[in-house]
Amino acid sequence: MEKVTIFDSTLRDGAQAEGVSFSVEDKIKIVKAIDKLGCAYIEAGNPGSNPKDLEFFERLKSIELKNAKIAAFGSTRRRGISPSEDGNVQALLRAGTQTAAVFGKSWDFHVTDIINATLRENLEMIYDTIAYLKEQGMEVVFDAEHFYDGYKNNPSYALKTLESAVQAGADCLCLCDTNGGTFPNEIYDITKLVVEKYDVPIGIHAHNDCGMAAANAIMAVRAGASHVQGTLTGFGERCGNTNLSTVIPDLQLKMGYDCIPQENMAELTHIAREVSEIANLKLNDREPYVGRTAFAHKGGMHVDGVSKNSKSFEHIDPSLVGNERKFLTSEVAGRTTILSMIRKIAPDINKNSPETVKIMERLKELEYEGYQFEGAEGSFELLIRKELGKYKPFFELDTFKIIGEHPTEGSIRTASAMIKVSVDGKKEITAAEGDGPVNALDKALRKALEVFYPTLSEVHLTDYKVRVLDSTSATASKVRVLIESSDGVESWTTVGVSKDIIEASWIALVDSIEYKLIKNIEKKYKQFL
Amino acid sequence: MEKVTIFDSTLRDGAQAEGVSFSVEDKIKIVKAIDKLGCAYIEAGNPGSNPKDLEFFERLKSIELKNAKIAAFGSTRRRGISPSEDGNVQALLRAGTQTAAVFGKSWDFHVTDIINATLRENLEMIYDTIAYLKEQGMEVVFDAEHFYDGYKNNPSYALKTLESAVQAGADCLCLCDTNGGTFPNEIYDITKLVVEKYDVPIGIHAHNDCGMAAANAIMAVRAGASHVQGTLTGFGERCGNTNLSTVIPDLQLKMGYDCIPQENMAELTHIAREVSEIANLKLNDREPYVGRTAFAHKGGMHVDGVSKNSKSFEHIDPSLVGNERKFLTSEVAGRTTILSMIRKIAPDINKNSPETVKIMERLKELEYEGYQFEGAEGSFELLIRKELGKYKPFFELDTFKIIGEHPTEGSIRTASAMIKVSVDGKKEITAAEGDGPVNALDKALRKALEVFYPTLSEVHLTDYKVRVLDSTSATASKVRVLIESSDGVESWTTVGVSKDIIEASWIALVDSIEYKLIKNIEKKYKQFL
Repeated sequence: MEKVTIFDSTLRDGAQAEGVSFSVEDKIKIVKAIDKLGCAYIEAGNPGSNPKDLEFFERLKSIELKNAKIAAFGSTRRRGISPSEDGNVQALLRAGTQTAAVFGKSWDFHVTDIINATLRENLEMIYDTIAYLKEQGMEVVFDAEHFYDGYKNNPSYALKTLESAVQAGADCLCLCDTNGGTFPNEIYDITKLVVEKYDVPIGIHAHNDCGMAAANAIMAVRAGASHVQGTLTGFGERCGNTNLSTVIPDLQLKMGYDCIPQENMAELTHIAREVSEIANLKLNDREPYVGRTAFAHKGGMHVDGVSKNSKSFEHIDPSLVGNERKFLTSEVAGRTTILSMIRKIAPDINKNSPETVKIMERLKELEYEGYQFEGAEGSFELLIRKELGKYKPFFELDTFKIIGEHPTEGSIRTASAMIKVSVDGKKEITAAEGDGPVNALDKALRKALEVFYPTLSEVHLTDYKVRVLDSTSATASKVRVLIESSDGVESWTTVGVSKDIIEASWIALVDSIEYKLIKNIEKKYKQFL
Repeated sequence: MEKVTIFDSTLRDGAQAEGVSFSVEDKIKIVKAIDKLGCAYIEAGNPGSNPKDLEFFERLKSIELKNAKIAAFGSTRRRGISPSEDGNVQALLRAGTQTAAVFGKSWDFHVTDIINATLRENLEMIYDTIAYLKEQGMEVVFDAEHFYDGYKNNPSYALKTLESAVQAGADCLCLCDTNGGTFPNEIYDITKLVVEKYDVPIGIHAHNDCGMAAANAIMAVRAGASHVQGTLTGFGERCGNTNLSTVIPDLQLKMGYDCIPQENMAELTHIAREVSEIANLKLNDREPYVGRTAFAHKGGMHVDGVSKNSKSFEHIDPSLVGNERKFLTSEVAGRTTILSMIRKIAPDINKNSPETVKIMERLKELEYEGYQFEGAEGSFELLIRKELGKYKPFFELDTFKIIGEHPTEGSIRTASAMIKVSVDGKKEITAAEGDGPVNALDKALRKALEVFYPTLSEVHLTDYKVRVLDSTSATASKVRVLIESSDGVESWTTVGVSKDIIEASWIALVDSIEYKLIKNIEKKYKQFL
């Protein structure tokens, strides 16, 4: 299998995305995650432009990596000084990495109009910088910035910049579509020409401004490129970079290239989600391969087809990348989906059992009321249990009252909630305040129930969503609330619908707690069930 | 300029995305938005699989469209019956549209293993259905499902399915990459072959499972396709469809094709955001062309380059698609846009007036807090007025209290609100009950203020939306509330942000009322202003 070298720039180009700002701890975690996945290079930062990065490179020296080499990023020397006098070039050496990624200008317009150098000076800047770093024993990747725009504007000059890098001893020429404005066919043609011209490995660094970053990486590899830069979950300047969680499986699972150790492929979904979490950027649900709905089937015929043969509507087996198939329960989904969920609780039931019919009817009623169980498996399981008689409530609500007021005085928060519950005849009354009525009620309910069920202290809410249904009834509209909970190991989602947001939230909160308590029982008494 | 027909499937394939469930009102709004953008076709639903869609098609008949034709989606007839006996085919006729998009199987494996038909039967099903609809006077787009997978598996059979459609009179052959597993070079080669074979217009329907949906549409057009299907913001089954907000500007601004009226291009960002809001799916910030950070520059050299010459790091001028440049470090963002709104209120102000700077700063602060004034012009006008000193409050809030309780007894509703306000020193205290705390507060506030401002009785709320920001803080997350109000003549939208949904709603409610009262004064005293 032909090798494609994967070069991850999450910590460099990724850090140029809006809203991203990594602490040193975050960066260490990301380095470990990407190394674990098996990428060949991790571009860890620009030590010259960011003094904090130097500290981080220092920390990195003590971390042992299994698969990846660390690269430091910087630019060619400035005009009129030698590399040994240039602070940025010196910072590359001080970073102490084996590899440097050095960018230089390949677009004549940038040379003359942006950095105000002559075309000849720029060639010298490229040559000198790379030759100097090579003398110091470093491996050098030359990032030919704006190569494709440069080639389209002045092909002979763009090629001269590569020539200078090759003469200076560059180990790889990475062609950059810095503005993301190039299309796959152009990438293919231009890359092919460069590949045929030089003996050095050729790379691709693409941006997504035309939605082409993944396709451009693929087409460059088809043209002979053997080094792909990108960021694991695609974030970067403007519209982001080539998404490596897309192109790694594209190349390896579908096109037969060797990018990462095959045994790590099933970690891809997990690691992509972990990196998103660390960056605090929500991973797009629809992200190819690793998104939450990447293998979610909703259309009735799709669900039916996949049940018969998964290749009917799946281009790969989701388990190959560590993701999973989901059948979404909804008005367009059929009985097959629902049956597979019923069978998890009652394996003997079939498509025509009266229980199935009853559950289908209850589901239709609830959907008519505005419920939607797709992505609310917690509530859906409880619904099935209730219809099958495999359920009994864990507590009873006597009453709750919530009070909101405005303005508030002193340290009083905007809402408070009082609650009274009974468990096996024992009463508990308590109260809590919070940011808004739902938050207050949430806290009061847990506080009351933890007296009886201490394991609830493990549970915390990780997501809260509100959807106004039929929003034209304005503030009297029905709302659907989705709550995602986690106990640190498992996570589950529950749903509630009402015209009153408090009540809708209450329904979802109760489901969340009951789901957790049922799972505890299942774990504890597995052998009896 | 060569024409490319844009066929939007937001209401059909888009509705198959997880979390999407449109009300009839939502659908009407989306039809109007996509028509306004200038797409040629709007696929509005599947009348056969979803009885609610038939109602919606009925409603559509009374809506006048400027640019788009409505298409109904359905499948070829079932085995063993004629189209006139087939409920789904009949539903296509009952939908009353001029155009039908009919999908049929082009992959032999699907014919034999999924729908259990013979290869010959499937050809007849395609032929009969299209011939029948053509006899009824309809325009027919044949969606060749799984065409590319089919072609790769059994090229001669895949082509026979197209042949049957052509023989039956299909007006367009749309080649579908239903599983999203095909790469741009394959799309190009196979599409080119089909384009050369038939005289009928050829289309492309791509899915994004390999991250190639946009590139595949582009490559199909380069191969001669003249009809592109997709969804405006890319959502659809699994990883979604070709994102039209990406490929429309790709094709029109960068490749010279004619997709939508050029004068509408600057509406693209606004309409894409509007459709996302209606679907209640967050538009990815990094979305090409229309995302919030699509033209945001963060790297120091990027900011510097763009300041010297925008083409240095921008592949197009953001204003062409109605988006704007942002500098994330040194902020000079979007001043022109904002200036045009300030000038509506104070025509003498220019770009460098201190007022402009002050408003820009206030705006930045509010955006940081989670405000977004896109589609909340009412609140935006009030903000400008407040900064310009062209505002004075119409009332003062002394206090409000809201109480929610559960369970409730008898006819008592779940929430009640007490409010006390002053207008020119006169006090009014009153109360109301409602479906939930926001509804109760809304009613109490109007009741109190109508005493002083009787015209408020004309105002009613027509829409209410809640978006949870940073949803990982769960019930303590910030929420953004959007309220749309109408007085029967004009309608306006206002916004509020808070951790407490009651307070966020209150802010938006107050803006809504004040906006109305300002408009009244403007009308009444026009000659004095």
